[in-house]
Amino acid sequence: MSKLYIVGIGSGNVKTMTMRALECIKSSRVVVGYDGYIELIKDLVKDKIVISSGMGQEVKRCRIAVEKVKEGYDTCIVSSGDAGLYGMAGLVLEIENRINFEVVPGVSAVFLAASCLGAPLMDDMCTVSLSDHLIPWEVVKKRLVAAVQGDFVIALYNPRSHLRPYNLEKAVQLLLSYRDKNTPVGIVKNAGRKGERVIITTLGKVEYEVVDMMTTVIVGNSRTYIKDNTIITPRGYPI
Amino acid sequence: MSKLYIVGIGSGNVKTMTMRALECIKSSRVVVGYDGYIELIKDLVKDKIVISSGMGQEVKRCRIAVEKVKEGYDTCIVSSGDAGLYGMAGLVLEIENRINFEVVPGVSAVFLAASCLGAPLMDDMCTVSLSDHLIPWEVVKKRLVAAVQGDFVIALYNPRSHLRPYNLEKAVQLLLSYRDKNTPVGIVKNAGRKGERVIITTLGKVEYEVVDMMTTVIVGNSRTYIKDNTIITPRGYPI
Repeated sequence: MSKLYIVGIGSGNVKTMTMRALECIKSSRVVVGYDGYIELIKDLVKDKIVISSGMGQEVKRCRIAVEKVKEGYDTCIVSSGDAGLYGMAGLVLEIENRINFEVVPGVSAVFLAASCLGAPLMDDMCTVSLSDHLIPWEVVKKRLVAAVQGDFVIALYNPRSHLRPYNLEKAVQLLLSYRDKNTPVGIVKNAGRKGERVIITTLGKVEYEVVDMMTTVIVGNSRTYIKDNTIITPRGYPI
Repeated sequence: MSKLYIVGIGSGNVKTMTMRALECIKSSRVVVGYDGYIELIKDLVKDKIVISSGMGQEVKRCRIAVEKVKEGYDTCIVSSGDAGLYGMAGLVLEIENRINFEVVPGVSAVFLAASCLGAPLMDDMCTVSLSDHLIPWEVVKKRLVAAVQGDFVIALYNPRSHLRPYNLEKAVQLLLSYRDKNTPVGIVKNAGRKGERVIITTLGKVEYEVVDMMTTVIVGNSRTYIKDNTIITPRGYPI
C-alpha cells in the first residue's frame, strides 16, 4: 500500500534532518513542497517526480500529495523545521486522514536558532507566529501579552515579510511595555544552512531591517542573560 | 582542539536523531549522560568511554564533560529530545562557555508526541514543565494560566513522577477552570521508541495513572478537534 510521508526537513541541510526523514525522502517516488524548500533539498530529489509551487498554494499542494498516494505513489510532502508546527501536517490531515500516512517529526526553527545562540530556551517557552495572514492580529497580540505575563521565553516565527513589514516592530513594542528593554534577544537568519547569520542584542535595540521570513527571533524571559557571546536562560540548577 | 558536543538525541532511537547528532556521537571518545539516556543509545557507545549517572547528578555530569574536553577528549554530553529545552545545554554553558563547543539540536519530545497524534500543534504552542523541583509551583501555575489565556496549544513536560504524583492532576484541574472539558488531549508515552503508547482523550477524562516522566501530554487550544483517530489543530487555511 502506498504511503504519504509528511516530513519535517529541519533547516534543509541533511545534517539537521533525522535519519527517518532522510529515509522517507529517499524511498518516495514523488516529493511535493514549496519551491524554496525543494530548492534546499534539490540534491536529494534529483531522480524523483518533484511537484513544487509557490506561497499561497499550500492547499493545492496537500491535495496533490494526497492524490498521488491514491494513484499508488509513495509520496513525501515536505515542510521546513517540523511538519507539525506551522507546517503541512495539519492541512493534509484536515483534507484527508483516511490514507496510509506517517508524520515524520523534525527539528523546528526555534531549536536550530537556539543552538546558534547558546541556550536561550531551557525553561518553559512558547512560539508565536507573527504572520496575520491566517490568524487575526488581535489573536497574535493576545498571545504575545499572555506569553510575557507567563514569563515564557518567546520564539517569534514568520517575524517580518514584504507583505507584513511592520509586524515585528509592533510585536517588539508590545513586548517592551511588559518586559525590560535589556532582555536578551537572539536573531538567527538561515539557521543551520548556507547564509547563517547570528545577532545577539536586546529587546530595546532590535534592528528590524535584517529580519526576514527565514529568520527566527528569540526573546528571553526575565532570568535570561548574555554571557560572553552566548544567550543563557538558567534552568535553576544550583551551581 | 578537542570539542564538547551538547547533543539532543530525540527519542534515543537513531531514526529520530539528526545526521549531525549521530556524527558527533560517533566521532566522540567520551560520552556523558543520564543512565536512562545512555541505555537508549547503548549500541552507539559500545567502544567509548561512557560516564553515566542518575537523576540529580546533572551538575556533576556537566562538570565532568567540561573536564574531559580540557583533558583533550572530544566529548558528547547527551540529552533526550533537544539539548536546549530542559536539557543540558544551559547548565553546561552556565558552568563553562569558554571552551570549544557545539550545541547540536534535536527533536524535542513535543514533536515526537505530536507526530503520533496527527497534528495537534500547528498553531502557536507552548511547553510547560510540571516539575517543581527547580521552579516553584506558583511559577508553573502562573504559566499554565497564561497559556490558556493566550489560547496556546500546551505541551506538558515531566508531567508526573513518583516524587510528584499529583502535579498533572493539579495542572489539569487548573486548566479545566479555563478550558472546555471536551478539549482534545493527547498522551504519548515513550514517543518514537520501544514501548510507545498513544492515548487520545479529552481534558475532562485524563487518566493520570498511565502518565509518567517518559510521557508527554498535549492539550489542544480552543479550535483543536478529534477526527477519526487523530488530533488536529487547524492553522486556518480555507479548504
